Amino acid sequence: MARVLITTVPFAEHNRLPLDLLESIGVDYTINPLGRRLREDELSEMASDTEILIAGTEPITARVMDAAPQLKLISRVGIGLDSVDLLAARDRGIAVSYTPEAPAPAVAELAIGLMLTLLRHIHVANLSMHRGEWHRYMGRRIPEVTIGIIGTGRIGSRVLRRLVPFGSPRILVNDLEPKPNLVPELRLEWVGKDTIYREADVISLHLPMTEQTRNMIRREHLLQMKSDALLINTSRGGIVNEADLFNVMTDGHLGGAAIDVFTDEPYAGPLGQIERCMLTSHMGSMSVDCRTRMEIEATEEAVRFLRGLPMECNVPEDEYATQLSQRS
Amino acid sequence: MARVLITTVPFAEHNRLPLDLLESIGVDYTINPLGRRLREDELSEMASDTEILIAGTEPITARVMDAAPQLKLISRVGIGLDSVDLLAARDRGIAVSYTPEAPAPAVAELAIGLMLTLLRHIHVANLSMHRGEWHRYMGRRIPEVTIGIIGTGRIGSRVLRRLVPFGSPRILVNDLEPKPNLVPELRLEWVGKDTIYREADVISLHLPMTEQTRNMIRREHLLQMKSDALLINTSRGGIVNEADLFNVMTDGHLGGAAIDVFTDEPYAGPLGQIERCMLTSHMGSMSVDCRTRMEIEATEEAVRFLRGLPMECNVPEDEYATQLSQRS
Repeated sequence: MARVLITTVPFAEHNRLPLDLLESIGVDYTINPLGRRLREDELSEMASDTEILIAGTEPITARVMDAAPQLKLISRVGIGLDSVDLLAARDRGIAVSYTPEAPAPAVAELAIGLMLTLLRHIHVANLSMHRGEWHRYMGRRIPEVTIGIIGTGRIGSRVLRRLVPFGSPRILVNDLEPKPNLVPELRLEWVGKDTIYREADVISLHLPMTEQTRNMIRREHLLQMKSDALLINTSRGGIVNEADLFNVMTDGHLGGAAIDVFTDEPYAGPLGQIERCMLTSHMGSMSVDCRTRMEIEATEEAVRFLRGLPMECNVPEDEYATQLSQRS
Repeated sequence: MARVLITTVPFAEHNRLPLDLLESIGVDYTINPLGRRLREDELSEMASDTEILIAGTEPITARVMDAAPQLKLISRVGIGLDSVDLLAARDRGIAVSYTPEAPAPAVAELAIGLMLTLLRHIHVANLSMHRGEWHRYMGRRIPEVTIGIIGTGRIGSRVLRRLVPFGSPRILVNDLEPKPNLVPELRLEWVGKDTIYREADVISLHLPMTEQTRNMIRREHLLQMKSDALLINTSRGGIVNEADLFNVMTDGHLGGAAIDVFTDEPYAGPLGQIERCMLTSHMGSMSVDCRTRMEIEATEEAVRFLRGLPMECNVPEDEYATQLSQRS
């Protein structure tokens, strides 16, 4: 029967249902044995006889597809499609599905947790205390600061809704399409990104990776930010230029940062030298319920495909149009 | 003029107004030169000619009062009165005031930040990443877990209100006086503490230090908790037995803990050996706005006292009654 390659890891660690689903229809599957995000060459080699890829964020390029002549479906466990060459897939008749809703609540909660941690220097205090040093760090509360949210889609809007009972901070929001009534309980100011860079005390990014957002925040933008601004990136690595972030923070700029996503993952770069730069390991979607829902949805889509049933989570046409516009 | 001794530190670090207030009426003041919580003997020595104490959480005992024969007012910067012998103060005609409302929002925000951090293992991931190790920790979201709140006064009730937009977890609450309609948007189950110990995934303490709460959570209670339970203490050190917490966590019990308050502060004990035990340095009230408000309120009370104006923040009678009942 069909060969299924599961590249995203961990997979089915807390709930076996996705594997049970595959086994119930007698599908032969393999889980990525390297336990980390695959490189293009590794994926090309592993996928040589794969029909269905249950995929993470590894690069699924035209080269990979050419090395996988049996490939008929890419079922992404997650929302971002920057790793998939959608047009190359369409050219080869490969379907692509994804799970856009499932990760959003977990990413939003992580972003709120990182925001509160940065505002109160919890991460710095914890490092100090574990070294045996006592210093009472003075922080700020949410209603004291100006919060800037760039990107107000599934995740950004959930972050905003969770801020409602914390009081009334000034909230600056930026999106390609402003939605004036997004959170009626909050007074949102729809502004340009530059206004957020200049005026926000906390800046949280909730953007997809596209040609417009790749390398969007560089040295010049970081230097526009307040000297004690706090920057949070739980969206995609490479939207913030990592070398520039390292350099300005090493020079003392920014009060703190929380970076969950990196250009190359696993990350092994120099940001770990900066104590006020909090680092997590692409954990936005890593809650048992969201991760399980993502895995089940992506696996159910694979099962529907194998049974010839209608697909429910096909990537919508505008995602193809976005990639087409970036190519031209 | 009157000698004022300010023992709580830091003081007026972000806003000079409290010192300006004292200077505007020509008051001679001294700020604790040791930069940390004073011991009883140190305070006795420093307060020998003090009329007004603008006080932190250092022990203000009958011995201290006897060593400070000029003392007329203890103006606590904060809410807890476990450090002040109220009955000894009354016997000596020393007034006592406090600032019960000011710290609550900052403590509640810290508790939510610690809750999200523990649930997603942010602190452990940050330590790993700063060592150059990549591991994607699986966490839980608030609506997935059972939350137990012990103490639903000024702080506990604010924690509950901030949980509203995070979804609908099961919430167990305990208080001497259950308040059925405390947060109408949440379904609260008013239960005994033992039920919380046994059934909650996250337990957060929001209690004053009294004879009933001192050493309230010992080995036997910790062992009643789920093996992956998360314990948060932002209330008072000594409510959780620190040695017992260290021992059960060293044996692998509990998924994590966040401890902000300690029996002896500055804390220098062994909990820092446990990575999943997050430690902060009594930072509950340490936000610029709340801290400033506490300092200003306590100083205004001192100024009112010196000018012979009516006091506005006298400690209420039931706090004296509580200490009296504990003595007998």
